[in-house]
Amino acid sequence: MPSHAETLAAAGLSETDLIGGSLTVRSPLDGAEVAQLAETSLADMPAVIARAQGAFAAWRQVPAPRRGELVRLLGEELRAAKAELGAVVTLEAGKITSEGLGEVQEMIDICDFAVGLSRQLYGLTIASERPGHRMTETWHPMGPCGVITAFNFPVAPWAWNAALALVCGDPVIWKPSEKTPLCALATKVIFDRAVARFGDEAPEGLLQVVVGGVDVGEALVTSRDVPILSATGSTRMGAAVGPKVAARFGRSILELGGNNAMIVAPSADLDMAVRAIVFSAVGTAGQRCTSLRRLIVHNSIREDLVAKLRQAYGSLTIGDPREDGTLVGPLIDQGALDGMQAALSAAKAQGGTIHGGTPVDAVAGGAYAAPALVEMPAQTDIVRTETFAPILYVMGYETLEEAIAMQNDVPQGLSSCIFTLNVREAETFLSAVGSDCGIANVNIGPSGAEIGGAFGGEKDTGGGRESGSDAWKGYMRRQTSTVNYSAELPLAQGVKFDI
Amino acid sequence: MPSHAETLAAAGLSETDLIGGSLTVRSPLDGAEVAQLAETSLADMPAVIARAQGAFAAWRQVPAPRRGELVRLLGEELRAAKAELGAVVTLEAGKITSEGLGEVQEMIDICDFAVGLSRQLYGLTIASERPGHRMTETWHPMGPCGVITAFNFPVAPWAWNAALALVCGDPVIWKPSEKTPLCALATKVIFDRAVARFGDEAPEGLLQVVVGGVDVGEALVTSRDVPILSATGSTRMGAAVGPKVAARFGRSILELGGNNAMIVAPSADLDMAVRAIVFSAVGTAGQRCTSLRRLIVHNSIREDLVAKLRQAYGSLTIGDPREDGTLVGPLIDQGALDGMQAALSAAKAQGGTIHGGTPVDAVAGGAYAAPALVEMPAQTDIVRTETFAPILYVMGYETLEEAIAMQNDVPQGLSSCIFTLNVREAETFLSAVGSDCGIANVNIGPSGAEIGGAFGGEKDTGGGRESGSDAWKGYMRRQTSTVNYSAELPLAQGVKFDI
Amino acid sequence: MPSHAETLAAAGLSETDLIGGSLTVRSPLDGAEVAQLAETSLADMPAVIARAQGAFAAWRQVPAPRRGELVRLLGEELRAAKAELGAVVTLEAGKITSEGLGEVQEMIDICDFAVGLSRQLYGLTIASERPGHRMTETWHPMGPCGVITAFNFPVAPWAWNAALALVCGDPVIWKPSEKTPLCALATKVIFDRAVARFGDEAPEGLLQVVVGGVDVGEALVTSRDVPILSATGSTRMGAAVGPKVAARFGRSILELGGNNAMIVAPSADLDMAVRAIVFSAVGTAGQRCTSLRRLIVHNSIREDLVAKLRQAYGSLTIGDPREDGTLVGPLIDQGALDGMQAALSAAKAQGGTIHGGTPVDAVAGGAYAAPALVEMPAQTDIVRTETFAPILYVMGYETLEEAIAMQNDVPQGLSSCIFTLNVREAETFLSAVGSDCGIANVNIGPSGAEIGGAFGGEKDTGGGRESGSDAWKGYMRRQTSTVNYSAELPLAQGVKFDI
Amino acid sequence: MPSHAETLAAAGLSETDLIGGSLTVRSPLDGAEVAQLAETSLADMPAVIARAQGAFAAWRQVPAPRRGELVRLLGEELRAAKAELGAVVTLEAGKITSEGLGEVQEMIDICDFAVGLSRQLYGLTIASERPGHRMTETWHPMGPCGVITAFNFPVAPWAWNAALALVCGDPVIWKPSEKTPLCALATKVIFDRAVARFGDEAPEGLLQVVVGGVDVGEALVTSRDVPILSATGSTRMGAAVGPKVAARFGRSILELGGNNAMIVAPSADLDMAVRAIVFSAVGTAGQRCTSLRRLIVHNSIREDLVAKLRQAYGSLTIGDPREDGTLVGPLIDQGALDGMQAALSAAKAQGGTIHGGTPVDAVAGGAYAAPALVEMPAQTDIVRTETFAPILYVMGYETLEEAIAMQNDVPQGLSSCIFTLNVREAETFLSAVGSDCGIANVNIGPSGAEIGGAFGGEKDTGGGRESGSDAWKGYMRRQTSTVNYSAELPLAQGVKFDI
Repeated sequence: MPSHAETLAAAGLSETDLIGGSLTVRSPLDGAEVAQLAETSLADMPAVIARAQGAFAAWRQVPAPRRGELVRLLGEELRAAKAELGAVVTLEAGKITSEGLGEVQEMIDICDFAVGLSRQLYGLTIASERPGHRMTETWHPMGPCGVITAFNFPVAPWAWNAALALVCGDPVIWKPSEKTPLCALATKVIFDRAVARFGDEAPEGLLQVVVGGVDVGEALVTSRDVPILSATGSTRMGAAVGPKVAARFGRSILELGGNNAMIVAPSADLDMAVRAIVFSAVGTAGQRCTSLRRLIVHNSIREDLVAKLRQAYGSLTIGDPREDGTLVGPLIDQGALDGMQAALSAAKAQGGTIHGGTPVDAVAGGAYAAPALVEMPAQTDIVRTETFAPILYVMGYETLEEAIAMQNDVPQGLSSCIFTLNVREAETFLSAVGSDCGIANVNIGPSGAEIGGAFGGEKDTGGGRESGSDAWKGYMRRQTSTVNYSAELPLAQGVKFDI
Repeated sequence: MPSHAETLAAAGLSETDLIGGSLTVRSPLDGAEVAQLAETSLADMPAVIARAQGAFAAWRQVPAPRRGELVRLLGEELRAAKAELGAVVTLEAGKITSEGLGEVQEMIDICDFAVGLSRQLYGLTIASERPGHRMTETWHPMGPCGVITAFNFPVAPWAWNAALALVCGDPVIWKPSEKTPLCALATKVIFDRAVARFGDEAPEGLLQVVVGGVDVGEALVTSRDVPILSATGSTRMGAAVGPKVAARFGRSILELGGNNAMIVAPSADLDMAVRAIVFSAVGTAGQRCTSLRRLIVHNSIREDLVAKLRQAYGSLTIGDPREDGTLVGPLIDQGALDGMQAALSAAKAQGGTIHGGTPVDAVAGGAYAAPALVEMPAQTDIVRTETFAPILYVMGYETLEEAIAMQNDVPQGLSSCIFTLNVREAETFLSAVGSDCGIANVNIGPSGAEIGGAFGGEKDTGGGRESGSDAWKGYMRRQTSTVNYSAELPLAQGVKFDI
Repeated sequence: MPSHAETLAAAGLSETDLIGGSLTVRSPLDGAEVAQLAETSLADMPAVIARAQGAFAAWRQVPAPRRGELVRLLGEELRAAKAELGAVVTLEAGKITSEGLGEVQEMIDICDFAVGLSRQLYGLTIASERPGHRMTETWHPMGPCGVITAFNFPVAPWAWNAALALVCGDPVIWKPSEKTPLCALATKVIFDRAVARFGDEAPEGLLQVVVGGVDVGEALVTSRDVPILSATGSTRMGAAVGPKVAARFGRSILELGGNNAMIVAPSADLDMAVRAIVFSAVGTAGQRCTSLRRLIVHNSIREDLVAKLRQAYGSLTIGDPREDGTLVGPLIDQGALDGMQAALSAAKAQGGTIHGGTPVDAVAGGAYAAPALVEMPAQTDIVRTETFAPILYVMGYETLEEAIAMQNDVPQGLSSCIFTLNVREAETFLSAVGSDCGIANVNIGPSGAEIGGAFGGEKDTGGGRESGSDAWKGYMRRQTSTVNYSAELPLAQGVKFDI
Repeated sequence: MPSHAETLAAAGLSETDLIGGSLTVRSPLDGAEVAQLAETSLADMPAVIARAQGAFAAWRQVPAPRRGELVRLLGEELRAAKAELGAVVTLEAGKITSEGLGEVQEMIDICDFAVGLSRQLYGLTIASERPGHRMTETWHPMGPCGVITAFNFPVAPWAWNAALALVCGDPVIWKPSEKTPLCALATKVIFDRAVARFGDEAPEGLLQVVVGGVDVGEALVTSRDVPILSATGSTRMGAAVGPKVAARFGRSILELGGNNAMIVAPSADLDMAVRAIVFSAVGTAGQRCTSLRRLIVHNSIREDLVAKLRQAYGSLTIGDPREDGTLVGPLIDQGALDGMQAALSAAKAQGGTIHGGTPVDAVAGGAYAAPALVEMPAQTDIVRTETFAPILYVMGYETLEEAIAMQNDVPQGLSSCIFTLNVREAETFLSAVGSDCGIANVNIGPSGAEIGGAFGGEKDTGGGRESGSDAWKGYMRRQTSTVNYSAELPLAQGVKFDI
């Protein structure tokens, strides 16, 4: 097993980069301090933003397929550095190796997608009602895009945003979580390699990483010169950010909390369901925005399913996420573990029966816990609250209508799923009267979206969409144009105005 | 000429509906009081919203093409009542007859468009990376849509929103401007006719009109049960509304102020330009959000163009907008006239030379003014401010780059245009380095958009889009779904997690 | 019950129009001669086509939304004349009243759809790889569109084509089946009403009906001045038409034969399946291109399903399709009845057990028959042949893979369906390894498509698509354009060529 | 300068592969024999096609993004082998080095595009008119795709087809021109490298190259097991192929002849026009399907432009295309040179004044000629004929309408352009009354399309589209599906059929 310093060095982060600053970075693996990073000074933010604006003036004039070429090179460099970057993700966010690599793979996938997009960015030509007139809708670069990311996905969401933003003509200013700045710096090293191969057309300031806390983020949130602000994090964060961006008529792309449920219907393939449940409830130690948090099980199979889950939970290996066979790594820090324990206490007080959930002394200095399965008599307040930890609440239902109502009766609206082999149940769940979430799956868990679809959710999840489909439109401005090439001047709607 | 009461009666508004309340409605034509309307009590708003939610539960289950049928009937009823509704627009907003009718025509057009849309509402099927998986993006009804409209377009923007919202499965709560509630009530009469023909599938509460001021609007703005809030009005209004909607994770569609310019290049067809300028600067007495407010003229033709404009301005007939030949009707009220005069004073103080702009005693009780042409030495503060009145500031330029920079150097970003016969100038203006507005035209003025294109603007204009293109997506929620129909459970991005 | 002459007169076809020609038209209801129509002389065809070309020169310049207005008026006129036109369909094609009306409803639906389309006809703006270049894809009118229709849907397929063609800017020349020319003439009467309301912008020759046989059709098929040829009919017809159109580089839209199957899985809702089967197998007396002809039933439920079907078949009312309660009207003529009997003989010879299928003496002069249910030991040659009559072959299967292979193992590829409540079966049927047909449904029969989807099929069905989705592109020509507005001349792909 | 054998060896074609067969391949550079290739026997074609069908059964089940990964690897291998493959193109087709490389670059570009596409292949979800029904349009793999290519673009058009076909799930059988089989074999070597990296998911027979003449092609053209036939070549070839494919209900994608014109308007930037004209008229020795063949010049500038062109033509270096500075390489063979001379004789007989055009003894054994400029009094028959050689006919015009009419008055409809700085002229040219070609450009020549747009043309050009936009749909079959998840069975169009 390499040392932390070796892991960082392999990712291009030399020791001298990592010392002398005021931001202490610790690894959740063992609580070890791995860096003392210099923070971006608030006073420097105007210059950072100005640099991005300068980059924008140049970058918007580079043809989109050329911009795509930079992203293609970024994809190549990510492929080359996949293991090294994945290891930093594991080191700093505590994910098991396979998930760390999976996150880098998502970065690669979105690069591939964005390269193709760079020859599309389709607007429309539209039939005009006036003779000798041509109407079009064109998408233009928008300006600098601030990207605020969270610790639990320290690199992929940046890539979802950045690959699109760059292809769309927008420079990026990235403020990573204070808990995972090294992932951002390691990514920046890779990005710089791509830029070096790309050459001079890439202006200085195309990607800037700012390190720091809420005030640094605030500088992006409130600046009129950052027209797009994409933020991943808690609903609380989003409730603070959204109105500030709105107050300056900026555009925000919010990916906030989830409280994701699975409905397990009588016809479900239970073995498959068990695997999906365990992966989506305990993977990343329950710290994904799409982690499964609520299980709504038909009463006829509830007891059976809980038994199977208890057995599966019992077999999980908890420990150093770098080791083969480990499925559950640490929580991000002791605070997260405390929060988990508090939630379990509340659940108990609200009538819950708790299986597991106790702290585990896996690696000294790390905040490890056994995932918890909590049988609840009803969907109480604590169930309706997102706790960023591996807690899965289990509740019963009788009718599909009731199950869907429970699924929807939380403030969040990110992801959801049903396990059923019945066409009518599956389709009803996906229909206008079904799940109210941005993501609704059948026979797969709530997490693990592909980059080809739009990612995001409704209600307190913030409404933003990233990644695939037409999420790229969030990074461009739309222009409706009519060109009159006739020698007449007809008015629309038949209005007459003769001077 | 019919009396005001006759005009209202012809539109289905009987005298008894119009008396006894606390909201005094006056006609800008002559300042006459035409109604004392009952206002919606703030205490009633929860019930209004609950009724809309109830309507939503039913309406979302009516198939979209059936919902389209209601909108088709609405279009038929609007066709039948075009003259009567147009007359109310003229009466209450002061538009000349042709423009009042044009506004109703826009309502009709968007109904036709929405009917076709009702068999589309296209989502996507998307290639999945996993065998035996199907991925789709589907658009579902979203919930009640609040629509706040402004006095200057008292009916068309409602229709842009409502025709789409209804087809998309969303009930509508309409709060018209306090200055033009009768237009809303007259429209409601027409809507009810369509509903009567449509039958029982239309739930009660599908369209509700609430009459009142800021507090009534606020009830819509702050309610989590009104997921979509579309508001047309001033930037000041939008700056208040946007953050409040954001704070509750609602979706706002803002159509705010414009400060629309025309660049007139040396190669322009000047006769055509003059007609376009006059229509777009003085039409609706300069009270359109898309009214032309700034003229950026190449220095080589500036003197000539100003002369032609002064001549054209001199020939305009100002007066009762119902009379044949009138091109300039009243401002909405005395306050607007005062604002106009104040702006002209400021312009003078900032170096401007003013032609016209004086109050005109056209009809007693009305606030009539001669449109003003103001030659400015530079783009000063008053030029960068939207004054809702027929004031056109004229400035010179030397290079296209300079002209575009002037065009973009205002807080608003609604509409813009260039008059030129030169391909390079025209295309540059429409390109990524050209106009930063949501609408950018060539050889037509900034106003008079067709409903087939998306309508709206950037920066302080609020960023919302209504009407054509894919603006309908603003009224629906997007759901990304993956259905696993295999007996395997592969994870995306090649993640391994074997329990 | 009105007389035939009264029915025709109500649809605007006066007696004098219907006599004196050489084409005898008989009603399948009773074999009565209802007209002696004048046929279009082959010598007149060049003038017909020239008139269409003349109309094209004008019509392509009418803005698409205006062209849509004509189609909207056509929709209104069809609504007004629905009963009368439906009655002519019943009279001439022998459909029951509800189906005759349904066919007119489809005409109305496609008009509504096309009106919306008239403000779309979306092309693309596309990101260019060269600085200072703009790339677009625009759709332009194509030219006259020949429409050849079949007796079994005498009006709806014309409308699918014509509503789109007209909106797309293309005049239409319609050659109806020799067996149903009156439906075409009655439709022309309605069309002319719409034109009269529309006014002068509609050029003469926008719609022409030519009456006659193969040679008249051939004149359309072989003319370079008819760039689009849409033909509905038999595979034999398509095999003759397609190569001729291809030889002159025209575009053909072929809707040919179907041999449509339903797979009934063990989990199917059998009651629902029975209703779907009976409607789709015996409706229109089995003379739809989408009629159900093959039933592939899981062996475990086969006996049960056949019993239910025999009972249902036994209860069908066969007779005059105008009478309430009649579900099965006549075949189109005695030849069709002979063909049915011959097919049944072949089926018997190939091992089939036949239930029903005998001629019925319902109305003197008409060719009525009891629908046939034929249990087959295997998918023999006669099963793989489309017989235009109410014959349903029933076969068993063991595995879904086998059932899909049987479904696909016919030359035709129009429509198909599965009845199952199992997600995996349903999705597999719809997947890349499922049905190879243009239409594949779950839990509804193969017939009765909505106009919002594209209609048509693969293999011997001809590959054409009509009606919804982007079928309209079949009526336009696509133009890829790049505008260089820079002062440079870069070459694509980095090619250097310096002179 | 490497020897021919060295060039071929560098591209992976060893000497032993190139001897012993019956097809003699010569280099147009010097007429040298470079290979005696074994031809595919007609008797082997059924096995070839069966192998493709076998590959299809497997490949269609590989998820599209995985299929995209193979194409991504192909793009990487093409990047790595760009110089070597480009050299083979030069050797076998006679293109100058820059153009040979440009052709490989096009292959790379389409790979990038197709990779992005592999996560799209978007179908639609569509609003259904029936409650409890879901409607979709999905695109599925179609089957083996035959690709017949021409000598003048020996590799890029294959890539346009193959990159899309492979991503769409279709195996490819490639029949290159008998004149350029080595380019195909060298490409196959590169493809095999990508497959080797990709691994076992790529079935055997995914790409097969068949070498031979018309009869080998015919085996593809007539086989029902090759549902898609894409052919690039002469109109004569297309007129033979199209009907045969149509007769078996296959789908053909035809890219046939062009007779491409440029209109030069009075306002044109003449220097830019001259460069565009020379590149597009003499590049690839006038042997592109998009070569400029007709120049339609406003009479006011005709003399001036011809003078400039004669000067530019006089400065062209004709010779070995591998040498720096060469702009005009050889014609493909002596037959092409004879055809060129015959055309010039005809032009003279029809009133033309010929400048240049004489054979040049540049390299012994090669068929070199000076490009010809031919001033014509009118658009005579020879002008309306495509001669595959560097002949440019020049004609005058007075009005734009006249110029457009001349432009359109040829049988072919591939590419076209106008040089003008006037908005009205440019837009008219691009409008419904403008060019009738598939490609219409402004201020760039007719050749050198980017891969992001759809490539192809109308009329005798065959109507096919390849490369960008939605050309990929040509390689898939469309399926319209409705899923009824309700317990009711409503019929579309309100039809009633109660049993």
